Amino acid sequence: MTRERLYLFDTTLRDGQQTQGVQFSLAEKQRIASLLDGLGIDQIEGGWPGANPTDSAFFEAVPPLSRATMTAFGMTKRAGRSAANDDVLAAVLNANTPAVCLVGKTHDFHVSTALGITLEENLENIGASLAHCVAQGREALFDAEHFFDGYKANPDYALSCLLAARDAGTRWIVLCDTNGGTLPSEVARITAEVIAAGIPGDRLGIHTHNDTGNAIANTLAAIDAGARQVQGTLNGLGERCGNANLISIIPTLLLKEPYASRYETGVTVDGLKGLTRASRLLDDMLNRVPVKSAPYVGASAFAHKAGLHASAILKDPSTYEHVEPGIVGNARIIPMSNQAGQSNLRGRLAEAGLSVEKGDPRLAAILDEIKLREDAGYSYDTAQASFELLARRTLGLLPDYFEVKRYKVTVERRRNKRNQMVSLSEAVVVVKVGGEKVMSVSESLDASGMDRGPVNALSKALAKDLGPYQSYIDDMKLVDFKVRITNGGTEAVTRVIIDSEDGEGRRWSTVGVSANIVDASFEALLDAVWWKLARDGAPAPGRSAHPANTAPTDTSPDSTAPNDTAASGTAPDGAPA
Amino acid sequence: MTRERLYLFDTTLRDGQQTQGVQFSLAEKQRIASLLDGLGIDQIEGGWPGANPTDSAFFEAVPPLSRATMTAFGMTKRAGRSAANDDVLAAVLNANTPAVCLVGKTHDFHVSTALGITLEENLENIGASLAHCVAQGREALFDAEHFFDGYKANPDYALSCLLAARDAGTRWIVLCDTNGGTLPSEVARITAEVIAAGIPGDRLGIHTHNDTGNAIANTLAAIDAGARQVQGTLNGLGERCGNANLISIIPTLLLKEPYASRYETGVTVDGLKGLTRASRLLDDMLNRVPVKSAPYVGASAFAHKAGLHASAILKDPSTYEHVEPGIVGNARIIPMSNQAGQSNLRGRLAEAGLSVEKGDPRLAAILDEIKLREDAGYSYDTAQASFELLARRTLGLLPDYFEVKRYKVTVERRRNKRNQMVSLSEAVVVVKVGGEKVMSVSESLDASGMDRGPVNALSKALAKDLGPYQSYIDDMKLVDFKVRITNGGTEAVTRVIIDSEDGEGRRWSTVGVSANIVDASFEALLDAVWWKLARDGAPAPGRSAHPANTAPTDTSPDSTAPNDTAASGTAPDGAPA
Repeated sequence: MTRERLYLFDTTLRDGQQTQGVQFSLAEKQRIASLLDGLGIDQIEGGWPGANPTDSAFFEAVPPLSRATMTAFGMTKRAGRSAANDDVLAAVLNANTPAVCLVGKTHDFHVSTALGITLEENLENIGASLAHCVAQGREALFDAEHFFDGYKANPDYALSCLLAARDAGTRWIVLCDTNGGTLPSEVARITAEVIAAGIPGDRLGIHTHNDTGNAIANTLAAIDAGARQVQGTLNGLGERCGNANLISIIPTLLLKEPYASRYETGVTVDGLKGLTRASRLLDDMLNRVPVKSAPYVGASAFAHKAGLHASAILKDPSTYEHVEPGIVGNARIIPMSNQAGQSNLRGRLAEAGLSVEKGDPRLAAILDEIKLREDAGYSYDTAQASFELLARRTLGLLPDYFEVKRYKVTVERRRNKRNQMVSLSEAVVVVKVGGEKVMSVSESLDASGMDRGPVNALSKALAKDLGPYQSYIDDMKLVDFKVRITNGGTEAVTRVIIDSEDGEGRRWSTVGVSANIVDASFEALLDAVWWKLARDGAPAPGRSAHPANTAPTDTSPDSTAPNDTAASGTAPDGAPA
Repeated sequence: MTRERLYLFDTTLRDGQQTQGVQFSLAEKQRIASLLDGLGIDQIEGGWPGANPTDSAFFEAVPPLSRATMTAFGMTKRAGRSAANDDVLAAVLNANTPAVCLVGKTHDFHVSTALGITLEENLENIGASLAHCVAQGREALFDAEHFFDGYKANPDYALSCLLAARDAGTRWIVLCDTNGGTLPSEVARITAEVIAAGIPGDRLGIHTHNDTGNAIANTLAAIDAGARQVQGTLNGLGERCGNANLISIIPTLLLKEPYASRYETGVTVDGLKGLTRASRLLDDMLNRVPVKSAPYVGASAFAHKAGLHASAILKDPSTYEHVEPGIVGNARIIPMSNQAGQSNLRGRLAEAGLSVEKGDPRLAAILDEIKLREDAGYSYDTAQASFELLARRTLGLLPDYFEVKRYKVTVERRRNKRNQMVSLSEAVVVVKVGGEKVMSVSESLDASGMDRGPVNALSKALAKDLGPYQSYIDDMKLVDFKVRITNGGTEAVTRVIIDSEDGEGRRWSTVGVSANIVDASFEALLDAVWWKLARDGAPAPGRSAHPANTAPTDTSPDSTAPNDTAASGTAPDGAPA
């Protein structure tokens, strides 16, 4: 049986931008567009040209797309003028995207209340605007705003709006549950009635919001009724409670019946492996804490805490998992506390090139140390390099390369000669290396003379002179810096995660925790240097260099870890020396 | 038409306890039980007596319940012994709860794989165990584990398990989607077939998990098919992706058709007003960050960011809200953002007690300033106080209370006399206030002698002596500190958001942005002080005090804004002076 095509339309860059607290930069919009294209999304709604500087700039600088169709969003023309003479619509068309999506009213109450025009004028606005886009050779989409509420209030008028769009040659007519209050049974019924009224399902799209927690179910209900375009966002970003979450919907469509055997999408089953990474990448970009309980991709999605479950999982994972975690690029977690914890640990150590015999008492010692530190606010989910150092230390495989005797950082803000307020940081680090006491000082100004802050000054001072080890770290640079407020025991503390990179493009993450943000940063910086020395087999003080017991770089989890920088360009307050 | 009764069964204290990172204390279990009883939940599953010390202790000390039925959880007896001689089952019955819920296998594969017994033995275990509970005068419930997967694999056997429970006199037979992979259409079909096979709907319950994001829809589908008991947890706590979220389901059942007119529950429409508070209370108890996008109760659930939406909301809230926020105890938020239009701005100014005529050119000036700053990395969605200061400044309504001439912060880490590494920060702030130059110095140690870091030292030095204004800020304290790495123009910068509180319990948020994290923090601290002076009508230098032109505190959006800090107690690196 040949499978029918379902089309995936992503509006992360438009509706997703309505998320409270989310403010995409141009660079972020470009990276997200490439990410979506790489996943196999059919259509990307990039924003509203003319609505704000970032969106306008984005359409001037759309990254190369291998398959996705870039779409500009706008609204139907205002009444009392022709489509050609509507400047707002003109701005949208001037973005010169192959596809254009226009939102228009279909709820009579909104036409009178929000627009204050006649129902007939609104019909004319819809038809003329979309016909204008089609005449310009664009693929035209119509977002039927408030359609379900409108249909319940006045089905004939709501339908006449869709028919006006259809007759104008609109490729996709999208039923929008704008306020998010519609339930699945209603979506199923109304979508079927729309198709019966003359809008073919293969020209029908569904756009839902999660205000009752049914955005995903509403989407599936519309597909079941015949709609063939699915609109949503990555991680369910969007106004209020968010849009339908494509990260949850896509695996359901590809892995579960009746969808798996009935339909195909631009995303392949093999492509699903990139899903978890894509979800985390977006969170990191926005510095949002990933939702642990997120379907398919959450850190807890395959975590088995209940004793009965954990033991059954060891016999056969399918006993308590609806899909295999690896198929969406996620991983199974079985609490470190029980027996399974040790085999987990051994696997993770092996990834670091450290093989430890089953039942080795040091495994329990490592688990205890991790538990202790996680209670204090540390997190080793992403900070693999710090985890590796902790393990090497417990296993007695980490030389005492050098000792930090003390450091001092000064941050000063005052008026300069030109009477401008300027700030400058200065750091002094004193280390004892190979019996020698070495004192280094650096300041926080970057090449452009801009103050990059105290952590930047500290990182430069620390990396300035490590005597015999200097050659090992000269190619190191700090590429990202993330700060989270977390809870250590009873008190709140600051957790800093630092990503470093070396000349070979190797990338590793380290963690530091303290109530003092500079201290937490310094701890993470120190781990970064220490890991580099260990991985490159720097000799213990007073010994000659020897290759370290490590896995080849290309199998290192850090080198394969997602590039999770939250900020493009130079990382703030901790920039490369 | 008389409405049919739907029964609400909460398992927060049992299944919710399987949430990764959640470990209830006895006191927490007692508080949650009282909270559930107060909401009007019919039945509370308190835990598994004998499974762990906390659960056993809880059943010894169940708080007084006004209406809810306390239920103990356990599993059907093991094979090869009588129900009376099964010690695990005995421990459950010894908790002496009026109701007992036993989980049992209904999926043939699990009977052989996990239990390793014959299908007949399993049927006997189910029937005999539940009959034993009934004989002891308990209300008996049967959790049919893996029912939907089991039914799809072997419908006859799965049904025979339910019939064995029914014939034993079980009050509620609960269909569990244990692995959470079942979709709504399947739940609807299978539930209907179960009823057709002889299990009356008014003895049928539904227990779903959110592994595909359909837990809520699956619950509604089962109700539509005839099930009359709904199982779930507060905030959707639970193993992996969580259980069905009662906080989302209850308002849908009470406010939306067809449910509202068809059914009634122990929770009344009036009781819904306590829902947002209950949700936040649980998050506070577990020190979890409340999910902003949560349906009905999330801080963003009624936040209107898009300019078009915001302007319509000002005309008629129903244009972009599916229910009225107050009915679930939530509140409307109209945040600023470069998406926002002038009407949005005027609405937000009004909230700050600043009325500006429509079309006033200063509105455009304020919007331009906001756009400029948001492009530089600022965000005013949550930082209402900084927005208000920006507006007052542009409107010429902000006195120059004082001027910061310079500041200097030192962070030092070294060995103390006892040869331990210790850190200490010291801050000097120089301000010019009322013609006087005032110099203040503070260090970062808190009452317990712990170093709270440079921002803490800075906040204390700044608030130490503001001359004539000191009395206005003495009751101020810093209650939260958030850091984000964001993108300012082409370069990454640090955004700091600080929440402050005063003696009247008023709470406000301010923002600072810089490549230097200390600088960004200082800017936010300064705004916090400045806002307090403005709101409390501090006189301009050399003038006498006058009441500021402000709205009453209780209408300030900050005072009603939810507290979204994950960190309880003292905020790190910026603790109250």
